[in-house]
Amino acid sequence: MEGKPQVEIYDTTLRDGAQMEGVNFSLQDKLRITEKLDEMGFHYIEGGWPGANPKDVAFFREVRKLPLKHAKICAFGSTRRADSAVEEDRNIRLLLESEAPVVTIFGKSWTLHVTEALKTTLDENLRMIEDSVSYLRKQGREVIYDAEHFFDGYKADPEYALKTLQVAWEAGARILVLCDTNGGTLPHEVEEVMKVVRERLGKGVPLGIHAHNDSGVAVANSIAAVRMGAVQVQGTVNGYGERCGNANLCTVIPNLWFKMGVASIPEDRIRKLFELSHFVSEIANLRHDDYQPYVGRSAFTHKGGVHASAILRHPATYEHVPPEAVGNQRRILVSDQSGKSNIVYRAKEMGVDLDPKDPRVDALVQKIKEAENFGYQFEGADASFEILLRETLGEKVKFFDLESFRVIVEKRKEENTVTEATVKIRVDEDVVHTVAEGDGPVHALDNALRKALERLYPALKRIRLSDYKVRVLSEKEGTAAKIRVLIQSTDGERVWGTVGVSTNIIEASWEALADSVRYGLWRKLRREK
Amino acid sequence: MEGKPQVEIYDTTLRDGAQMEGVNFSLQDKLRITEKLDEMGFHYIEGGWPGANPKDVAFFREVRKLPLKHAKICAFGSTRRADSAVEEDRNIRLLLESEAPVVTIFGKSWTLHVTEALKTTLDENLRMIEDSVSYLRKQGREVIYDAEHFFDGYKADPEYALKTLQVAWEAGARILVLCDTNGGTLPHEVEEVMKVVRERLGKGVPLGIHAHNDSGVAVANSIAAVRMGAVQVQGTVNGYGERCGNANLCTVIPNLWFKMGVASIPEDRIRKLFELSHFVSEIANLRHDDYQPYVGRSAFTHKGGVHASAILRHPATYEHVPPEAVGNQRRILVSDQSGKSNIVYRAKEMGVDLDPKDPRVDALVQKIKEAENFGYQFEGADASFEILLRETLGEKVKFFDLESFRVIVEKRKEENTVTEATVKIRVDEDVVHTVAEGDGPVHALDNALRKALERLYPALKRIRLSDYKVRVLSEKEGTAAKIRVLIQSTDGERVWGTVGVSTNIIEASWEALADSVRYGLWRKLRREK
Repeated sequence: MEGKPQVEIYDTTLRDGAQMEGVNFSLQDKLRITEKLDEMGFHYIEGGWPGANPKDVAFFREVRKLPLKHAKICAFGSTRRADSAVEEDRNIRLLLESEAPVVTIFGKSWTLHVTEALKTTLDENLRMIEDSVSYLRKQGREVIYDAEHFFDGYKADPEYALKTLQVAWEAGARILVLCDTNGGTLPHEVEEVMKVVRERLGKGVPLGIHAHNDSGVAVANSIAAVRMGAVQVQGTVNGYGERCGNANLCTVIPNLWFKMGVASIPEDRIRKLFELSHFVSEIANLRHDDYQPYVGRSAFTHKGGVHASAILRHPATYEHVPPEAVGNQRRILVSDQSGKSNIVYRAKEMGVDLDPKDPRVDALVQKIKEAENFGYQFEGADASFEILLRETLGEKVKFFDLESFRVIVEKRKEENTVTEATVKIRVDEDVVHTVAEGDGPVHALDNALRKALERLYPALKRIRLSDYKVRVLSEKEGTAAKIRVLIQSTDGERVWGTVGVSTNIIEASWEALADSVRYGLWRKLRREK
Repeated sequence: MEGKPQVEIYDTTLRDGAQMEGVNFSLQDKLRITEKLDEMGFHYIEGGWPGANPKDVAFFREVRKLPLKHAKICAFGSTRRADSAVEEDRNIRLLLESEAPVVTIFGKSWTLHVTEALKTTLDENLRMIEDSVSYLRKQGREVIYDAEHFFDGYKADPEYALKTLQVAWEAGARILVLCDTNGGTLPHEVEEVMKVVRERLGKGVPLGIHAHNDSGVAVANSIAAVRMGAVQVQGTVNGYGERCGNANLCTVIPNLWFKMGVASIPEDRIRKLFELSHFVSEIANLRHDDYQPYVGRSAFTHKGGVHASAILRHPATYEHVPPEAVGNQRRILVSDQSGKSNIVYRAKEMGVDLDPKDPRVDALVQKIKEAENFGYQFEGADASFEILLRETLGEKVKFFDLESFRVIVEKRKEENTVTEATVKIRVDEDVVHTVAEGDGPVHALDNALRKALERLYPALKRIRLSDYKVRVLSEKEGTAAKIRVLIQSTDGERVWGTVGVSTNIIEASWEALADSVRYGLWRKLRREK
């Protein structure tokens, strides 16, 4: 990265990210994320706001015990209160007590906020910025100044907004970060405003950017600021943050590196962005966004037949960067728009070499088309596809055959609903007949099937269902419509999907369930060979 | 909007949007979305690619029967094949047979694609563009030319890329649309390239933009193009599209209008963007993205205490536009103030005047909060909400009480699945006990309930279920997760929605079913009074 321009990455997943609806990090969660961000080579990690959140006080105590190699930990807080001494300010005291080496102080840039939210004078606000920054500097802390609502403030009163920056700089802030707190600013406005700021403050004053995504342009605003000379980008992993989120660092970092030649975290860590992104969504207990740029499961997924055949010949035809560059991978989906080349490619991924001229490929294409016409969809059901493929080629993947099942759901007034399922299956020459209860019909069927197979295949204990989706295919017919069930399963190492279709939701669920178990067992036994 | 600059909105939700992993529109879905987009005042609706997808041929046949008021329907397809006559080209013939008044032809701008994907010469590619556009023009179609991979093509060989545009323009295309097909282009590159294109082609040639989101900047690229003079923006509702999606029109349209003063759809329709966005995600059966700019459920949600108190005094302090401007609403997670006024407002819509100080309103707020915590959602279930409201106020809407039900689903190898439901209900002093079969458990329950009530309430014959939707709420628990069922019913005059929630899908379906019948009967009897 020598010779390349370089920006610092300032992560606020633990503070601004935690403001997102549905996110609630425990202390342990925050510490685990901190370790991961440090491994990734992030420069700054904002741990929290000790003045606003008692949990954050504990974080700063515990984080000192972590052997971090790279990142500096930052404590976040506001300027001192109006009309009071900085030495006696509770918020400022808590920032010092956090013992964080870096303190990020946010101050008001927008006159509306000074008069309406703080209810103080414009002059007092300037003194609040000056006192807070210089006091923290005197206590030996590195101070980052976050100019809250800078762009809105600039639009309302440019001279005042510029004055707040000047005051923070002269009081000793190491860097001034322009915040688009409400997320309403567009990239060309960021460029215009930054141009003026650089002219007025001089090129020697380092600037940063903190963008929110309310207009869908947080990433664009961040890279626009870097083009105008910003040397720090604040954002969050996966763009988590209040309302519509913050600038997504998993998008900003590769955009800077691959498209603008601007370095940030070490290049070998960029290959771990996929892992980081999924790690943080797991900890936040949020479904990962499949469509997220670079790191989403669908980001390098090709569905159309035209695209699929071109990409096999020359990946750059439909990929802006190689998926491996961020740790992701290419996927080719089988869908009703896909032809032979998709199927040959998918088979290859599964370790099966198919000659496109092999008549069995035509048989397979035919089978898939018929299944899709009936309502099957293999996009989310790679395992059902693989079972179909291998069985068509003559391999035995179905471990058992269904003899019969019966599900009874019974509800009596003011009593809990009782659900019982019986399953009778044939495994080679054995017939196994079991019964089990469950929270609902599918759960009960799942329990009964496990009971039938676990004695023969203890590996089944490892396999569990991780998602269950139901889609009504033809709404016109109301409750008599055709139903598609998609099930996702995992053995802790790998995830696979299966599908079932029927007018009867129980039968559709059984199909997907049976395929899920078959695939899991087949895979396990094959690896043991 | 007089005097304001204006751009056309070209929607490709039905074609590029359908390329998204997990999206699979039925013919009915596509027709319903078309009607909605037309109501919204969109200018162009791309219906599909008749050459690639037989389902799309049916769409163009059926869409001619819809009484559209505003939008023009477009058929999408490629230029003619290499080394063949345009009159004999199957793809071109299908475009004409679609009878769509507008044909959108995409051609290759990137030399790599001409030689590697088409495997033809650069000259032949130019003739393919020329022949295809001029032939379609001669057949009386409006032709939109999509310059595929234009930005990548321009980077590789600017003169050739410009030449393809020139050829398409001279052959009679009405507008030239620059496509960032791989989504790898950044906003400043869009600006630079568009500047050259305008200089070289002249200001009289109308240009459009078609952006993909692989770098997280599709919205920014679209508005950058408009700033450089583009008069058409192509995109999709919710940004659906292949890989990471297309430019999100639900973000582009309000950005243009509120922030740049550029008109597109009529201003009163901008207030319906929230509704449109949720409608399309419902039809696609995709979870709506809570964090989506403007139209996400969290887009105007305030979590922190600091923000919440400021916002009550002065909304602009933390909101970039008023939520009502796009049909969304402010939510403050710490206060039940907004909940109360919401309920009073909704009751009024149903003809019930409530005093906010009435203690029954507090009871109702409490009940709704508990229900929503449990997983109920009344947005798509107006009838369940009204039943809750009226019962809380002392009105009798529930015509019957459940004594018990039992559902049996039985499957034997190679036989059809048999489903039987028994229902025992109390209507005043009568106990009615019935049994019925059905295609699936919910259908059988529906049949048994009707059998029990039709003798007493012949009006029930008119009521039928028109939609049935299932959503799994907590994916972590697999088949033991909580499930929400939404049922839509109609009596031929009006449509209403009901909801049920349980870990047992049968119980959840029963709840929604019972509410559906109760509401339909109550409404019928009230009108007869």
